[in-house]
Amino acid sequence: MSSRFPSRLLEEAVNEFASLPGIGRKTAFRLVMHLLRRDSVEVKRFGETITRLREDVCYCSRCHGISDTPVCDICSDTTRDSSIICVVENVQDVMAVENTRQFRGLYHVLGGIISPVDGIGPSDLTIGKLEEKVRAGGISEVILALSTTMEGDTTNFYIYKRLSGLDVRITTLARGVAIGDVLEYTDEVTLGQSIVNRRIFSLPSQG
Amino acid sequence: MSSRFPSRLLEEAVNEFASLPGIGRKTAFRLVMHLLRRDSVEVKRFGETITRLREDVCYCSRCHGISDTPVCDICSDTTRDSSIICVVENVQDVMAVENTRQFRGLYHVLGGIISPVDGIGPSDLTIGKLEEKVRAGGISEVILALSTTMEGDTTNFYIYKRLSGLDVRITTLARGVAIGDVLEYTDEVTLGQSIVNRRIFSLPSQG
Repeated sequence: MSSRFPSRLLEEAVNEFASLPGIGRKTAFRLVMHLLRRDSVEVKRFGETITRLREDVCYCSRCHGISDTPVCDICSDTTRDSSIICVVENVQDVMAVENTRQFRGLYHVLGGIISPVDGIGPSDLTIGKLEEKVRAGGISEVILALSTTMEGDTTNFYIYKRLSGLDVRITTLARGVAIGDVLEYTDEVTLGQSIVNRRIFSLPSQG
Repeated sequence: MSSRFPSRLLEEAVNEFASLPGIGRKTAFRLVMHLLRRDSVEVKRFGETITRLREDVCYCSRCHGISDTPVCDICSDTTRDSSIICVVENVQDVMAVENTRQFRGLYHVLGGIISPVDGIGPSDLTIGKLEEKVRAGGISEVILALSTTMEGDTTNFYIYKRLSGLDVRITTLARGVAIGDVLEYTDEVTLGQSIVNRRIFSLPSQG
């Protein structure tokens, strides 16, 4: 099919879009045709944004999350509690926790999760940096906020072992029935955990 | 949500991808994170390809299809039959017809289809140019190869009216049961047309 493109520029653009995950050649073609109909200033900005993204984006030297500056906005916010570190897989998870407005500590972004299938071991992640940070002192609690998958549990366990000798409280997110979930359709492991870890009932408070 | 991005570059890139049709913010984020993991040379090429696409791509002065040169490869191919013009909606359709390897004439790309709902009238398309081309002479047949939609039929009819006084044969694609279609599930209009336009049976020949 590639030899029949009427334009090499068109073909190259379709190939680039088709190289993205979850985007096939038909969709890539549709996106490129859409760009051709868009204002040229907008399309130029699109192209330049992508180029700049990869060239200029950096990683925060403290939390290892994506940042525009050597130390990210969260890590440089002195009103936040630097004694509590929330360990997350990636920057999406930082944003997810931030959106809850329930956490005022700092983050530590692992940059992935231990996954032997994908060839990702502990040394590919920032676990060593986390240990250094805790050893340096001043941290009272490390919250493990990873996905409740086998890889997440493996990573939790590995980090727990690395930090267990140190003077720090290691916590993990509460597991239980999600808000809005119907009990009948909740899986038995989650439901079982939610019974074992039941709490004193209190009326919901706004705030 | 936008105020909580840890990086403006990241946010801008997500916004750009999310501006594409059929790509929501979650998908845009996933695509951007994918680009951040890719080799920086590749990502730079991606960005530059998009910028160049919109700036450098041009339209063939004869068929009005997308081209890298003022006259496209098909229109400048002297081995093709310049007396037959296949009228299509866009360059995807040129590629679709080319892929059949059954057509050795030239194309005329309308750049769309008459669609009052989308505010596209005859003057937004290259129908005038088609008429000029036919009036200039040397064209024996115009094949209307538009989609079998209401908009396609409207456009077919409009072009037919515009060209009907001129010395040219106007044809349209054969309508019928698609190859591989089960008769039971073929819509009755198509099936009806395929009976009205039935052909003498012949054994399929390899070619």
